[in-house]
Amino acid sequence: MSSMGEDEVSSFFESSPPLKKMEDILQKLNGFIELNSSGGRRRIVCVTSGGTTVPLEQRCVRNIDNFSSGNRGAASTENFVKAGYAVVFLYRSGTCQPYCRSLPDDPFLECFQFPDNTNIQGICLSFSIYIHRFIFNQMFCTAVAEARLLKLPFTTIYEYLQMLRLIATAFKDVGPCSMFYLAAAVSDFYVPWNSMTEHKIESGSGPLDIRLAQVPKMLSILRTNWAPQAFCISFKLETDSKILIDKATKALGKYKVHAVVANELSTRKEEVVIVSSSGNVVVRRDSDKPEAIVEDNLIRLIVDRHSTYIKESHT
Amino acid sequence: MSSMGEDEVSSFFESSPPLKKMEDILQKLNGFIELNSSGGRRRIVCVTSGGTTVPLEQRCVRNIDNFSSGNRGAASTENFVKAGYAVVFLYRSGTCQPYCRSLPDDPFLECFQFPDNTNIQGICLSFSIYIHRFIFNQMFCTAVAEARLLKLPFTTIYEYLQMLRLIATAFKDVGPCSMFYLAAAVSDFYVPWNSMTEHKIESGSGPLDIRLAQVPKMLSILRTNWAPQAFCISFKLETDSKILIDKATKALGKYKVHAVVANELSTRKEEVVIVSSSGNVVVRRDSDKPEAIVEDNLIRLIVDRHSTYIKESHT
Repeated sequence: MSSMGEDEVSSFFESSPPLKKMEDILQKLNGFIELNSSGGRRRIVCVTSGGTTVPLEQRCVRNIDNFSSGNRGAASTENFVKAGYAVVFLYRSGTCQPYCRSLPDDPFLECFQFPDNTNIQGICLSFSIYIHRFIFNQMFCTAVAEARLLKLPFTTIYEYLQMLRLIATAFKDVGPCSMFYLAAAVSDFYVPWNSMTEHKIESGSGPLDIRLAQVPKMLSILRTNWAPQAFCISFKLETDSKILIDKATKALGKYKVHAVVANELSTRKEEVVIVSSSGNVVVRRDSDKPEAIVEDNLIRLIVDRHSTYIKESHT
Repeated sequence: MSSMGEDEVSSFFESSPPLKKMEDILQKLNGFIELNSSGGRRRIVCVTSGGTTVPLEQRCVRNIDNFSSGNRGAASTENFVKAGYAVVFLYRSGTCQPYCRSLPDDPFLECFQFPDNTNIQGICLSFSIYIHRFIFNQMFCTAVAEARLLKLPFTTIYEYLQMLRLIATAFKDVGPCSMFYLAAAVSDFYVPWNSMTEHKIESGSGPLDIRLAQVPKMLSILRTNWAPQAFCISFKLETDSKILIDKATKALGKYKVHAVVANELSTRKEEVVIVSSSGNVVVRRDSDKPEAIVEDNLIRLIVDRHSTYIKESHT
């Protein structure tokens, strides 16, 4: 880590608009960690999910958004809870939620589609099916009852990185039993807050040129400064399969993470590749089970590797 | 309208990725108009709502988004239905829906907030309150039962403008009884599809410069070519109140719409100004009624003006 990188990171945070409700977030976070690091429960993972936005105007109307449904993060969270982890779910507002993935975007509205379903009794019936599917989801009840899931929402790149720093700092004491599973689609480019126009950009005077700066690579700082003992998994998404493994391998070396999960946009629900110093492993969905998802097998493998990492840290 | 403007519009549509399920949309739309233009029900409005996105890559990961909750469009739709209109609600996927505005973003999740509500009975109780508030919403049931609401979702600027053109063309026969109420936050700038990169933009090589072209002003074409007899209301949102009325007045002259609703970002839920050739009228929320919204008074006024317009068209 060059001091150049650290300078960029400092100036990013200094120029960021301050996080709202920071005290409240910290209190929830510390309470959650305390609760979950006692009584034999030790492992904790921060799952990041969904895309960050980059505002183009301070009083934000326009922004650049990174598309991500949040499905990977939500599904992985369910599997981590199942494996006994406490999960801090750092997610983009409005994206997929754990235990709600099988629900339609808007369950209320799905039941009211014109013109197939104009009968009120039919509506109530199809609605109650949704409710039952959700309410009686045993795993969700377990997670809530045992307080194993803390959900924290973000929207902008500023919120995301400030919250990630808070979480990493709070995880420091958990040491090797903590994990970062960074599935969020984080913006690579942004408009520094100080150089941003306050008001809405005017239209009507020809083309608009925007110069975007690179977001400093926080992953290095997370590894070296914020939570150096945590097990760390990052993601690489590409649309071009030809360059995917090469880029994931480079990221592994550059950020010194423990593994990079490589996925291609069009096949990401069927297979991913775990790239690590011990070689590349292709992980597929069990295609013979209709309910199976690729995250079932992915998290099983990641948890195994985390177990090995914890054992090795203690010797 | 210069031929220059028309050329731009033609080339925009020619280079747009084709609309998916166009046949299906057309069939729904024509069925809805036919149903609602018989039996004494005559008035029909197209309410547009939410923001459009501009893809930055063809296999879209990044895009520029115009923030809009869609609250204005959803609330206005309820008021138009109440006033006897059939409504085509052209909305951005995932934004506010009519009759669901009072629900939280995610009603399922609100009931499950850690750590206040870890008791399953408490969860079920608070959830059933939401359900009842929704299911028994009388106006909604009426709208569905009488088939007065057709909802059509969009995401990109390409989808929005192609669907708007379809609707305008389909409204042509309804003449002065049709209305366009254009509350959507439409992108002013875009990257022409043909000049767009197919794959994800690479990061890691310095700042990124993006040149955005202006989206051709479709409002003029809607007024002069697509649906010249329709009553037409457009919106102007600014963050700077000093330039708001001036910009709204210029838009009124430029696009020859019947009125422009001017609103400032920070006060938009309290008041708007209707700018028209007969002068400017400030419309406020009835602040003595807690449930009142500014759209109650806004739509009452707009409907009155539409009535006058229809009368004048028949003489």
